[in-house]
Amino acid sequence: MTYFRRNIESAKGYEPGFQPSFAKAAEGRPKETNIIKLNTNENPYPPSPNVMKVLSQISSEQLRRYPDPMGNAFRETAADVNGVEPDNIMCCNGGDELLRIAFGAFCDESRPAAYPVPTYSLYPVSAKLQNCKAIEIPFDDEFNLPAKLAGTGAALTIVCNPNAPSGTFINVEELASLADELSGVLLIDEAYVDFAENNCVNLVKDFDNVIILRSMSKGYSLAGVRFGYAIAQPDLIAGLSKIKDSYNVDTVAIALAAAAIKDRQYFKANVEKVKAQRARLIEELRNLGFDVPDSFANFVLAKCENKLVGAEPAVARKADKVYEKLTQQNIYVRYFNYPRLKDKLRITIGTAEQNDKLLSALKEILAE
Amino acid sequence: MTYFRRNIESAKGYEPGFQPSFAKAAEGRPKETNIIKLNTNENPYPPSPNVMKVLSQISSEQLRRYPDPMGNAFRETAADVNGVEPDNIMCCNGGDELLRIAFGAFCDESRPAAYPVPTYSLYPVSAKLQNCKAIEIPFDDEFNLPAKLAGTGAALTIVCNPNAPSGTFINVEELASLADELSGVLLIDEAYVDFAENNCVNLVKDFDNVIILRSMSKGYSLAGVRFGYAIAQPDLIAGLSKIKDSYNVDTVAIALAAAAIKDRQYFKANVEKVKAQRARLIEELRNLGFDVPDSFANFVLAKCENKLVGAEPAVARKADKVYEKLTQQNIYVRYFNYPRLKDKLRITIGTAEQNDKLLSALKEILAE
Repeated sequence: MTYFRRNIESAKGYEPGFQPSFAKAAEGRPKETNIIKLNTNENPYPPSPNVMKVLSQISSEQLRRYPDPMGNAFRETAADVNGVEPDNIMCCNGGDELLRIAFGAFCDESRPAAYPVPTYSLYPVSAKLQNCKAIEIPFDDEFNLPAKLAGTGAALTIVCNPNAPSGTFINVEELASLADELSGVLLIDEAYVDFAENNCVNLVKDFDNVIILRSMSKGYSLAGVRFGYAIAQPDLIAGLSKIKDSYNVDTVAIALAAAAIKDRQYFKANVEKVKAQRARLIEELRNLGFDVPDSFANFVLAKCENKLVGAEPAVARKADKVYEKLTQQNIYVRYFNYPRLKDKLRITIGTAEQNDKLLSALKEILAE
Repeated sequence: MTYFRRNIESAKGYEPGFQPSFAKAAEGRPKETNIIKLNTNENPYPPSPNVMKVLSQISSEQLRRYPDPMGNAFRETAADVNGVEPDNIMCCNGGDELLRIAFGAFCDESRPAAYPVPTYSLYPVSAKLQNCKAIEIPFDDEFNLPAKLAGTGAALTIVCNPNAPSGTFINVEELASLADELSGVLLIDEAYVDFAENNCVNLVKDFDNVIILRSMSKGYSLAGVRFGYAIAQPDLIAGLSKIKDSYNVDTVAIALAAAAIKDRQYFKANVEKVKAQRARLIEELRNLGFDVPDSFANFVLAKCENKLVGAEPAVARKADKVYEKLTQQNIYVRYFNYPRLKDKLRITIGTAEQNDKLLSALKEILAE
């Protein structure tokens, strides 16, 4: 006997990456650890100093009162940055909230969602919770946009770009063609786009069925704050806004996210540092014999099991074993026990020192 | 042509109460105004000083990293306070998120929700968005629990207790009987229970179908932070947790909410101050000829149109007119243009000074 709907009862729920020792951190005293945390794509560098300044100015009066339901202080700044208008923007409690809202807005038992796979593992979970069919179209090995994606008839098509966990990027022109061909909505999940060379924001001007998802977690080092946003034409924004909880983003988050997105100089320097480390990490991983595609995100996907220099294909070099051995050394990366990902590790770009330690550990593991 | 599902396209969305001049506040500089804001049931007093202390200790490292997905620092403290275990508790991005999650967990086209009316105006909006039937059972004029509520066959029954916007309270024993009779889930919305003399938390021990909703917005003066929580048996908590966004509450909110709920002395003193002002406001409103039921919340529902001392029933004394005249004086109260509420105003309990100004303004308006 269950009180839950059948689809909810049988759902598994999304499993987030391991978050060590947060009970202490949440009380204001981050526990000192030697953990190297490269498993959930946080930015390795702190947020803009302006964020901390705004945080220090939050008043008890601001905590006492309800937030601005639409987060207009953020919308105005984000509109400026993206060359759109505030009514093209909806604030969200993290990018995940926008995904959930989009499933709720467009999908149900007779209105499926579609996306290429492998990709962000939340999409099938969201589809299950919304009780809609998920049409999964396989990427080829180079993660090109599958032609079949245009013909699914889905009410909601999602393309994660740069894609997680591959880090690959699909050209804007190809996504423009896809938007044009689709009869439903195209949500382009740009959670990692701050680390790419281009983005799809201009598609919003030409297509009334395009929603861009953005996150403040990665490029702006604000994963703890939970802030993302949608960019779309005002009609879509108005419809999505009906579904969001009225006060979905809190006063502190609005203020910090606005301060972060406003500081363009810090943002650009931060992104450049991550990109430099990314280039270096890819090169050294390839030198170690890993197969690593070019990445346009703040992580890389490293294939472990072939081409390891001087290594016989042995059990000890399987991705899950490498993952376990890294974990034993307090180095956390992400292993997905999913089709086409079982032989790979997703590694977030860390600081130079973190990447040094990761590479040393990998060298030792491979030499065993 | 619309991209949205039909129920979403035709939905109106919830209309939150007016939130003045927040664009400025969100940038860290609350605008000085003479506004007296008694329209959205904020606590008139600031949060515990410990909250501000914890806020000042938040590090950039905490902002950079993802939050604890379950908010365990808060769960542990809230469990202590409520005499339950941490696995009886789920943190939410405001009580509204729990309502949305409950609709998603239990309701769909063939699984209706039921609740007595008039009540919190979000419930029918949530039902519409979830595309489920809403069975509305009218309260009698004393807001007693309607006997018919036990027999609706709803998958989710909601009782707001103390009820909004009446401020009335249904005894724990009556809700225990209701939980026993229902075949579905009973969600008791205790957003305002901090201002009542009793609560239903102990029902969670006896009934596997009871969910208690709590909010940190009212009793703890943290409306800007967006934090609420569920109390229920672990099976229900586990099922609801599958539906919530993985990182639904942010690091700052977890830390501030934990600090607030821990400071019992401040909380009790704050609530006593609100109750004292409530007693005084009810008495003075009755002296002015308003019909005001006893309130167990931090607001009162004042019926405007009858028994006004020395007044003929005139257009100028209609609730919507009184509302407009108060608004012209920068005194914001809440007017609901809904059945059985059109002749009433819901007034949040303010500070002594705010209540003075409200009462003076009302005296003038009634004397016109």
